Amino acid sequence: MSTNNNELRVGMVGYAFMGAAHSQAWRTVNRVYDLPARARMSLICGRDAGKVADAADRLGWEAYTTDWRDLVNRDDIDVVDVCTPGDSHAEITLAALAAGKHVLCEKPLANTVEEARAMAAAAATAQAAGVRSMCGFNYRRVPAVTMMRQMIADGRLGVIRHVRATYLQDWIVDPQFPLVWRLQKDRAGSGALGDIGAHIIDLTQYVTDQRITGVSAVTETFVKERPLSAESSGLAATADGNGDGPAPLDGQGPATGQVTVDDAAIFVARLDGGALGTYEASRFATGRKNALRVEINGSLGTLVFDLERLNELEFYDATLPSTEQGFSRILVTEGEHPYMSAWWPPGHIIGYEHSFTHQMRDLIEAIATGVNPAPSFADALQVQLVLDAVTRSAELGSSWTEVEPALAAVAV
Amino acid sequence: MSTNNNELRVGMVGYAFMGAAHSQAWRTVNRVYDLPARARMSLICGRDAGKVADAADRLGWEAYTTDWRDLVNRDDIDVVDVCTPGDSHAEITLAALAAGKHVLCEKPLANTVEEARAMAAAAATAQAAGVRSMCGFNYRRVPAVTMMRQMIADGRLGVIRHVRATYLQDWIVDPQFPLVWRLQKDRAGSGALGDIGAHIIDLTQYVTDQRITGVSAVTETFVKERPLSAESSGLAATADGNGDGPAPLDGQGPATGQVTVDDAAIFVARLDGGALGTYEASRFATGRKNALRVEINGSLGTLVFDLERLNELEFYDATLPSTEQGFSRILVTEGEHPYMSAWWPPGHIIGYEHSFTHQMRDLIEAIATGVNPAPSFADALQVQLVLDAVTRSAELGSSWTEVEPALAAVAV
Amino acid sequence: MSTNNNELRVGMVGYAFMGAAHSQAWRTVNRVYDLPARARMSLICGRDAGKVADAADRLGWEAYTTDWRDLVNRDDIDVVDVCTPGDSHAEITLAALAAGKHVLCEKPLANTVEEARAMAAAAATAQAAGVRSMCGFNYRRVPAVTMMRQMIADGRLGVIRHVRATYLQDWIVDPQFPLVWRLQKDRAGSGALGDIGAHIIDLTQYVTDQRITGVSAVTETFVKERPLSAESSGLAATADGNGDGPAPLDGQGPATGQVTVDDAAIFVARLDGGALGTYEASRFATGRKNALRVEINGSLGTLVFDLERLNELEFYDATLPSTEQGFSRILVTEGEHPYMSAWWPPGHIIGYEHSFTHQMRDLIEAIATGVNPAPSFADALQVQLVLDAVTRSAELGSSWTEVEPALAAVAV
Amino acid sequence: MSTNNNELRVGMVGYAFMGAAHSQAWRTVNRVYDLPARARMSLICGRDAGKVADAADRLGWEAYTTDWRDLVNRDDIDVVDVCTPGDSHAEITLAALAAGKHVLCEKPLANTVEEARAMAAAAATAQAAGVRSMCGFNYRRVPAVTMMRQMIADGRLGVIRHVRATYLQDWIVDPQFPLVWRLQKDRAGSGALGDIGAHIIDLTQYVTDQRITGVSAVTETFVKERPLSAESSGLAATADGNGDGPAPLDGQGPATGQVTVDDAAIFVARLDGGALGTYEASRFATGRKNALRVEINGSLGTLVFDLERLNELEFYDATLPSTEQGFSRILVTEGEHPYMSAWWPPGHIIGYEHSFTHQMRDLIEAIATGVNPAPSFADALQVQLVLDAVTRSAELGSSWTEVEPALAAVAV
Repeated sequence: MSTNNNELRVGMVGYAFMGAAHSQAWRTVNRVYDLPARARMSLICGRDAGKVADAADRLGWEAYTTDWRDLVNRDDIDVVDVCTPGDSHAEITLAALAAGKHVLCEKPLANTVEEARAMAAAAATAQAAGVRSMCGFNYRRVPAVTMMRQMIADGRLGVIRHVRATYLQDWIVDPQFPLVWRLQKDRAGSGALGDIGAHIIDLTQYVTDQRITGVSAVTETFVKERPLSAESSGLAATADGNGDGPAPLDGQGPATGQVTVDDAAIFVARLDGGALGTYEASRFATGRKNALRVEINGSLGTLVFDLERLNELEFYDATLPSTEQGFSRILVTEGEHPYMSAWWPPGHIIGYEHSFTHQMRDLIEAIATGVNPAPSFADALQVQLVLDAVTRSAELGSSWTEVEPALAAVAV
Repeated sequence: MSTNNNELRVGMVGYAFMGAAHSQAWRTVNRVYDLPARARMSLICGRDAGKVADAADRLGWEAYTTDWRDLVNRDDIDVVDVCTPGDSHAEITLAALAAGKHVLCEKPLANTVEEARAMAAAAATAQAAGVRSMCGFNYRRVPAVTMMRQMIADGRLGVIRHVRATYLQDWIVDPQFPLVWRLQKDRAGSGALGDIGAHIIDLTQYVTDQRITGVSAVTETFVKERPLSAESSGLAATADGNGDGPAPLDGQGPATGQVTVDDAAIFVARLDGGALGTYEASRFATGRKNALRVEINGSLGTLVFDLERLNELEFYDATLPSTEQGFSRILVTEGEHPYMSAWWPPGHIIGYEHSFTHQMRDLIEAIATGVNPAPSFADALQVQLVLDAVTRSAELGSSWTEVEPALAAVAV
Repeated sequence: MSTNNNELRVGMVGYAFMGAAHSQAWRTVNRVYDLPARARMSLICGRDAGKVADAADRLGWEAYTTDWRDLVNRDDIDVVDVCTPGDSHAEITLAALAAGKHVLCEKPLANTVEEARAMAAAAATAQAAGVRSMCGFNYRRVPAVTMMRQMIADGRLGVIRHVRATYLQDWIVDPQFPLVWRLQKDRAGSGALGDIGAHIIDLTQYVTDQRITGVSAVTETFVKERPLSAESSGLAATADGNGDGPAPLDGQGPATGQVTVDDAAIFVARLDGGALGTYEASRFATGRKNALRVEINGSLGTLVFDLERLNELEFYDATLPSTEQGFSRILVTEGEHPYMSAWWPPGHIIGYEHSFTHQMRDLIEAIATGVNPAPSFADALQVQLVLDAVTRSAELGSSWTEVEPALAAVAV
Repeated sequence: MSTNNNELRVGMVGYAFMGAAHSQAWRTVNRVYDLPARARMSLICGRDAGKVADAADRLGWEAYTTDWRDLVNRDDIDVVDVCTPGDSHAEITLAALAAGKHVLCEKPLANTVEEARAMAAAAATAQAAGVRSMCGFNYRRVPAVTMMRQMIADGRLGVIRHVRATYLQDWIVDPQFPLVWRLQKDRAGSGALGDIGAHIIDLTQYVTDQRITGVSAVTETFVKERPLSAESSGLAATADGNGDGPAPLDGQGPATGQVTVDDAAIFVARLDGGALGTYEASRFATGRKNALRVEINGSLGTLVFDLERLNELEFYDATLPSTEQGFSRILVTEGEHPYMSAWWPPGHIIGYEHSFTHQMRDLIEAIATGVNPAPSFADALQVQLVLDAVTRSAELGSSWTEVEPALAAVAV
């Protein structure tokens, strides 16, 4: 595979919520940033020919296919962007890496530690041949989050004492909300834990540069049975019972099925730099729509981030004169702020979607300049190991559970 | 001119801040909304051949020209999008309308009432021939703003008593900030008043469906002389004295020139539905980056909007039980909210740029379905008449000044 | 009159809302602050013997009287605290000063400039004999407000450009709210303007140390007729038609009477240091209960205060590194903050009532140490002159109206 | 003991931070509320004669003593108010109950479960004789908190799913802050856990009417050694090494001593109604001064409380039309709100101290009308049992630890 004319021909697998978000980012990134290569939206893949044709037309992809094996093996594809549910990540990604394609894989990296380990190993091998891989923890590229990391690295918080992270949503509070794929363990791997908990695990480790070493956890499934549904892609769904999930019973009201994942996962943690952590992921926090909130307390200050107000960063600087200390709302829209020089004048906010635009920016730059992008699959494996420790602790009556070291895991 | 294949071939004049914002909107609109026609980014125009070629390449326009007269007269252009400074709006727009092109013109419509009157008259004439025109008061299409109008129209606020609007920025607080075109009356028409004051005049009239009938105003230029500069496009500039403004004197420090527009404009107003209004536009409000804030108090409730948190709308419902009344922060990201069904799941916010995407959506739909979009040039003329009343009141020692009726003005 | 044993014997006239607030402050001040004299709650005065006896018992005054002339002339009273409606301020205060009593008079100082002028003159005369007088603009003593003044005096805001002040309430939005004394010009002098507008005039002048020199104003009475009521003391009232206002007509529904004061007053202003000001006082801002909000923009920063969150002060410091600038929420509860060393640990907030406690603290200290407290009656006269200019401007079609100089006025 | 003339003669032990807060409440309660009995501030007790004499004079107590045994046994004392550190609660309280005095005891009830059990048993016995006892979880009487409980009891939140509570402070972040009594296990029992963690345990159980049944916990002491100090009363202290703690070593810099309590305690919990809970108490959360925050998510809505803005309550009502749902900031200052009819007009906020005023109000009423006030000592014992479970879980590597039932404990 060679990149012609500084062009990166992208093939994307999946076209639901994540596919739409990635498409907007691929479409935008070179129009906003001046980069050493340009992405070309070459090919999109989905199982349903009619739907993927529609998606290609609407989202702006040049061609489509229903066969992901075709996509990962074609000569005219340089980058494979994996936006499918977690149960197919490993298979597609391993094939793409084997075919020498650069890979962007949505998070969580896999549904199991075993798969993640295999993927990290394959990525390490491919890397030696100049093949790049990245896991899509897109929130790292929200400018305020990137800035948190920089400020902490610069010592602005001193010694980190507390990490406090929640990711709260409420889209399944209604017991009549149907049994979509995200509520099925075989498809999604886990529930709130892997879907949104993974984000706060990665984000807090990223900004603090500390790793979670052990956890004590509780998980809960509040609503254990739900109506079957047409298989829904993404978050929206209706309960019509015509999906590819378990079939409804004849002549009866809507059939129901077991919810096999967690509705909520909460855990306390220790990080390797000495900080204590509290984590909570839930889809039952009524009124909280996308409430990823992180607070980091250090000996010299505190930083607070809220995804629903993602253009803002709160900073408490304990080195200011004591009478003037306070939580400062920094509007992260200045040209000097990370990623923001390419956007609008100060105070003109950007949206959620540009966490992906920034991700694509960094991926394109890494590929074009021959460096490894972050987060690597090894980074993503480490998150998977935390998820695994949380699951095991919850199963073992919240007993303290050490997180298996990622490096060792990869080495295996 | 005919629209082939449901395609609208757009020619845009200008490629600075507004040009970039419009480009992102044209690029996005048909990827997100399912519309009866598709915009094609056909042609971009700018005076400097090298710069406009770069802009075409970067922003994704198929071709470029340095001659706006060519652009407005070409057969393969259906829509002319005018993103230049106000002093050229009238000339370009009148030519485009004469050539039978649909026109989107940035706000304020013109630099003078006379020009605006001519443009509104031309638009009225063209309209009879099926030519559509729209003025770019994009903030009407922020979902929370559209929702304010709907709620007020539905009677949720009862009788409107107070309109309170500020649009505050701070980008010229530094006296060394150079004399860019936005600080020159011959280019910009006015200062904070026309640039940002126009937005709050339009927005408050739009949401309340009331018109300002009279004003008493004060304007001020705090820093009356500034360094000359390379002509800056948009808000960013450096003081290098190489612009197309007045030349610096040889052998001396940076030359300076007169600021000929207002730094701030404040006025009280009466609206035709009986409400009192207070308005403030300033570029000297330190820390306020893009602080368009509007509060409407009615007999049954209050609505508050803040552009720096444009995904939110505050609502006080005085019809709720008295112990439970409060200002509610509505996160305007649900599928049922205006324009939002096409975007992301609840809580995933959108950015400033999509006020333009929504504007293009409505413009495309209006053209394709043969209806007149709003705001019309007549609407924009009425805003111009308010700006004019403000200017006259300020010149006459704040004396009460009636706003000239827009209809009469058009009729002339 | 002599102060025995470092005791200040207080006689208070009025026992409604203000009387209760002052009582709590007199009761508390020496229990919290270590002062050179102690206040003794000696005597309370009201017209209705039964009610004032109850008030004395409940509020903790040693004795009561129904004759304010008796109160101001008794030998065993050192300080007269005037908490009556504005129409009796002048008569009581002038008598008290003539009797050599220190006087604390509620704001606004009087209902007319003429009365205020006479009171300021009398205070100036009495001052020569060591008699102290103070007007009760209590919000000056909210710690965050005091701190605003100190920060501005220290130059933290640089050159002041904008003063933006609103005092919004909503207690008379309902047209059936009765015609209480605060809605009658002969009792209250004016409506929202004198009641709450006076506070923001004083507060903004105090914190900026600039005086308003001219205004252009609009006032409005939205509901011009209201049910008659039992005369209400303070803000709460019921519409039972048994008050000492105009009598209801026999055999009919509740009679109504004319509202003779403004419901809302809005004005733009210039201050003598070059700042522009916008002011708004209204009792028709639905949902705004006690929303005194002040924002001061200077060349180096901005300060914002909100009385509904009076323990907080927002500060934007434009001298910080540009990427870290933001609006900082300072919790004004540290021991180093004004007045706060006597209160609770950091973060334990205080209430509205302690603006009075702090006022009493400063008054006691001034009397005991022989200095003149602020705000003086001359200061309060100047506020009255601004109110007068606002009223005149509104009557004259918002024409620009200069504020009569206070010193000249006192000199007369 | 008999109560004469509806008078309750109070004797208070302790005069530091809590003593001052209680004094302000005793002084205020009957001036604001119309109650069937009046509190008389009869006697104050402290170990240092000079200091307690000063305190009596400053705080307004009629007499003082240095012997708490005298205080609890005097005939002219009806109510004993225990404001000492936790290590003396049991002894004083048991003696007071034995002497037939009504008792108000500060929280946490005791330093050990054993003491708490004895106290609850004694209270139960005394109760039969008409002697009342109450533990000082004062935050129950913040109006917004009382309202939370009422709303939840009224079913406004539906089924409770999540309880999220933090109580964060930062007063010992500096490692040079001295070893005050609150950092010594023998005096304080525990650190952040018992001091502030106890508050959020009680408050969340109170508002949800659910009990914590089990926990998994981590505690940490970040700074293990601190300078010795003069024994500090309350939160403020200086490191002068002259306290009654361990003596400094001669001829050396300030000696240090071991911190024997937790700096932070975090735990996950299950409640008996099916809710999950997360709890965090820390004195190392830089910038958080008194940040008790509680969020309760239920199937129909969410409530949020923040002690630093204690006059506000946030409510998300998921039964409203979906487009209008949002977090509503209820300003809990209306006359219809709990406890507020006696205070100021709407929007005029109250301070921290009145949580105690309201507590005294309810205690006086309970005593005068012969009912048992809440929280009872049995309630406080149950909190103690949760604290004990947290401590045990932390000691046992975060293993899941059931909370011992309170009733059984009392029965012993």
